[in-house]
Amino acid sequence: MTDNIDFETRVRGSFAKQTIMATLGAEIAAVRLGEVEIVLPYSDRILQQHGFVHAGAVATIADSACGYAGLSLMPPDAAVLTTEFKIHLLSPAKGDRLRAVGRVVRNGKSLVVTLGEVFAETGGASKQVALITASMMVVGTGTGLRD
Amino acid sequence: MTDNIDFETRVRGSFAKQTIMATLGAEIAAVRLGEVEIVLPYSDRILQQHGFVHAGAVATIADSACGYAGLSLMPPDAAVLTTEFKIHLLSPAKGDRLRAVGRVVRNGKSLVVTLGEVFAETGGASKQVALITASMMVVGTGTGLRD
Amino acid sequence: MTDNIDFETRVRGSFAKQTIMATLGAEIAAVRLGEVEIVLPYSDRILQQHGFVHAGAVATIADSACGYAGLSLMPPDAAVLTTEFKIHLLSPAKGDRLRAVGRVVRNGKSLVVTLGEVFAETGGASKQVALITASMMVVGTGTGLRD
Amino acid sequence: MTDNIDFETRVRGSFAKQTIMATLGAEIAAVRLGEVEIVLPYSDRILQQHGFVHAGAVATIADSACGYAGLSLMPPDAAVLTTEFKIHLLSPAKGDRLRAVGRVVRNGKSLVVTLGEVFAETGGASKQVALITASMMVVGTGTGLRD
Repeated sequence: MTDNIDFETRVRGSFAKQTIMATLGAEIAAVRLGEVEIVLPYSDRILQQHGFVHAGAVATIADSACGYAGLSLMPPDAAVLTTEFKIHLLSPAKGDRLRAVGRVVRNGKSLVVTLGEVFAETGGASKQVALITASMMVVGTGTGLRD
Repeated sequence: MTDNIDFETRVRGSFAKQTIMATLGAEIAAVRLGEVEIVLPYSDRILQQHGFVHAGAVATIADSACGYAGLSLMPPDAAVLTTEFKIHLLSPAKGDRLRAVGRVVRNGKSLVVTLGEVFAETGGASKQVALITASMMVVGTGTGLRD
Repeated sequence: MTDNIDFETRVRGSFAKQTIMATLGAEIAAVRLGEVEIVLPYSDRILQQHGFVHAGAVATIADSACGYAGLSLMPPDAAVLTTEFKIHLLSPAKGDRLRAVGRVVRNGKSLVVTLGEVFAETGGASKQVALITASMMVVGTGTGLRD
Repeated sequence: MTDNIDFETRVRGSFAKQTIMATLGAEIAAVRLGEVEIVLPYSDRILQQHGFVHAGAVATIADSACGYAGLSLMPPDAAVLTTEFKIHLLSPAKGDRLRAVGRVVRNGKSLVVTLGEVFAETGGASKQVALITASMMVVGTGTGLRD
């Protein structure tokens, strides 16, 4: 479906421009309408002092997963900017990789509200390690900010 | 004063173990009792799609500044773990460098509440770009988690 | 089952002591293990300036639903105290009544994390109007704070 | 000054329409440009189960103080609606009265960010019991929503 290709291409194209993702080692794993997944493999370059993945790295993929969930629903002439988010760190972020799943809860005209979960995956096991809620402002691409 | 040396040494020693800081390019700039500053120079490795510093990088230094503000007040047998934080992105994070300042608002027995601000500095000018509030749980070092 | 009776009795007994609930007109509607519902009928005594139910009244029932979801899982010698919550107001709170549903997301030893939703019900229709996440500290009843 | 009279009249007029304030017993105490104070005397009608003022009542006055701080800066054809807030409950809310002070941190075109503090006052003593951050959406009065 043309539209599906379009929103997925749009989200993946924007993600590729987020240089912090390559720096942390994160990759986009799935793009659905209103739901996006980002995966971050464990590496010794993204840790806090106890050897867990730093809350800031967890927040980075959670925020982007939520933001791109929002972008996937935007018309061509609109983009989204995170205005605030809150993240609960439920358990130490350790495992083979982290998977952030962001979803749109309310797709408003000027404000999009999203909810996300982050899981630590080890072998076949998965455990939720974080919960995020985020607000995104809808901005016209006439502002010069695109996707 | 011996105590001052101790808390500063303790905070700087823990910060040095956070490998994400070197990965992002962040450095600890000041350690006072109950207040810590972290500086992050602009680089093309930590950006979002519009060329601003990614909200996740902003959150990373803001969270650590708050956490270390908490740690600076802990007795030797206790450390702190962030349980949640909320960050407002007030303006695009662009400039020569970002400076995160975290402060303890309430130093409770089992819970520490902190408030932080992030500024974008360009030449001699400074503009607030983020506001964070964070909760830290006090954990005994008997848990194996230290500093 | 004796245990079921116990947690429900405990939650309903504590709710009956929250005088603000009678003042606002709220009632407890359901008590399950880890999930509690509170209902607040519309009345002209709890409004903001546009005639919608005030965000503070929405937050009051959402916070208590989350807190009692936490209490329903506590052993007899422990209670919970809200340390922070964040609430998104998704749509104007108007209708015949509001229904807040609070659930435990993580039942930790010293910290309980909860997620809640508030719905506006009109006739047979229901619409989500708020989303809350809340942290509760587990306190021993030896502190003098009970249920 | 005419303008001062106007914003104060506007804020006080809107507050008078919030019926929940009379129900809880809250009064507006001060209106400055970008900063508003609301006072809530202790009464046995607004309590939680331990005899402290319920977090929801604390949130009600904190949210309104922040919202009216925002409204005090709005042009005549714009009003504000809270889209989300987060509140930290720092200490039990007990005393002769609570005083919420809300301030605008960032007065954006489409989004206003505010910070508020709530104090418990007993005799001449004052203790901070809560910290709130809130986002307000700017809405044109053409939407039918005024002040």
